[in-house]
Amino acid sequence: MGRYEEILDAAGRLFSERGYHATSVREIARQLDLQGGSLYAHIDSKEEVLFQIVERAAHRFSEVVQNLPEGDARVRVCAFVRGHLRVIVEELPYATVFFHEWKFLSEPYKDRVRRLRDAYETALKELIEEGVREGVFRVEDPDLAAKFVLGALNWVYQWYRPGGRLGPEELARGFCPLVLGALGGGEG
Amino acid sequence: MGRYEEILDAAGRLFSERGYHATSVREIARQLDLQGGSLYAHIDSKEEVLFQIVERAAHRFSEVVQNLPEGDARVRVCAFVRGHLRVIVEELPYATVFFHEWKFLSEPYKDRVRRLRDAYETALKELIEEGVREGVFRVEDPDLAAKFVLGALNWVYQWYRPGGRLGPEELARGFCPLVLGALGGGEG
Repeated sequence: MGRYEEILDAAGRLFSERGYHATSVREIARQLDLQGGSLYAHIDSKEEVLFQIVERAAHRFSEVVQNLPEGDARVRVCAFVRGHLRVIVEELPYATVFFHEWKFLSEPYKDRVRRLRDAYETALKELIEEGVREGVFRVEDPDLAAKFVLGALNWVYQWYRPGGRLGPEELARGFCPLVLGALGGGEG
Repeated sequence: MGRYEEILDAAGRLFSERGYHATSVREIARQLDLQGGSLYAHIDSKEEVLFQIVERAAHRFSEVVQNLPEGDARVRVCAFVRGHLRVIVEELPYATVFFHEWKFLSEPYKDRVRRLRDAYETALKELIEEGVREGVFRVEDPDLAAKFVLGALNWVYQWYRPGGRLGPEELARGFCPLVLGALGGGEG
């Protein structure tokens, strides 16, 4: 791992535990046994670090929708659920920062993140609409349904801990029928 | 509104916008045109204020499960959805602080909040189990289903803004069939 990645990882942990505003550049440096000032050889600002973390998380999430398998909308939605949960579980600090701390970015960073988030939500909404057209889902309001599903998935960052009762695969297996049911595409 | 409630409201807004750690007692006082020091005539510490906000939000949520109507589990779950969303929408800053900032409480405050949260989640889980026994829900893992539903509802605080496309009643009407569907208790 390069120095820059180490900085992002240390900052991601601190931002996710304490929040962006409550973390100083000095504390990030201390995690890496650096002097506060010497961190500026690697970064321009604390905000740049926040943006890089948020953008990396956004990139991981966007890979999920770019790599959905062929198949009917149920297969694709379950692959989405599995992929989305995997990013949260594997990148828990980054995902936490992505969900919470992005709002502390200033423009134009913030606008860029807002667009990434909107595009991702739109991709799920279109997947739901696809299922409605295919006749496998029954959904009144695909926009609201997309927000509902994303909320249910995203909230996992609040309670998921590695080594808990459910691993990432069990979690995806448990969530897939709940999501399909919500979209009117469950069994029975 | 008493002075103490004004303090909680001002603090709730600041904590929800900037985070607990990034808000000083001086800034809370400034919102109320008080000197920083004179706020201590009303409060013992910033942490006490955080705890009071979190406890009030927890109290509003717990009223929801205490006031569910009679009826089968579908009726009761939809009343839960409506009541839970109403608390989020009506108390957006308090709910935001309840969801995010409670983790910054120290013990024994934190443990007390953890129990309130657990009891609330357990109440929803038991409601789901009731529906399974009644034969109106089909759910593999009621604990996971409760987490799923709460996540979908709680996430609303992230995107809900007063005056948006959906008011609190439309929101509840849209969410109820999604929740029932997830629990295998939808129409059809």
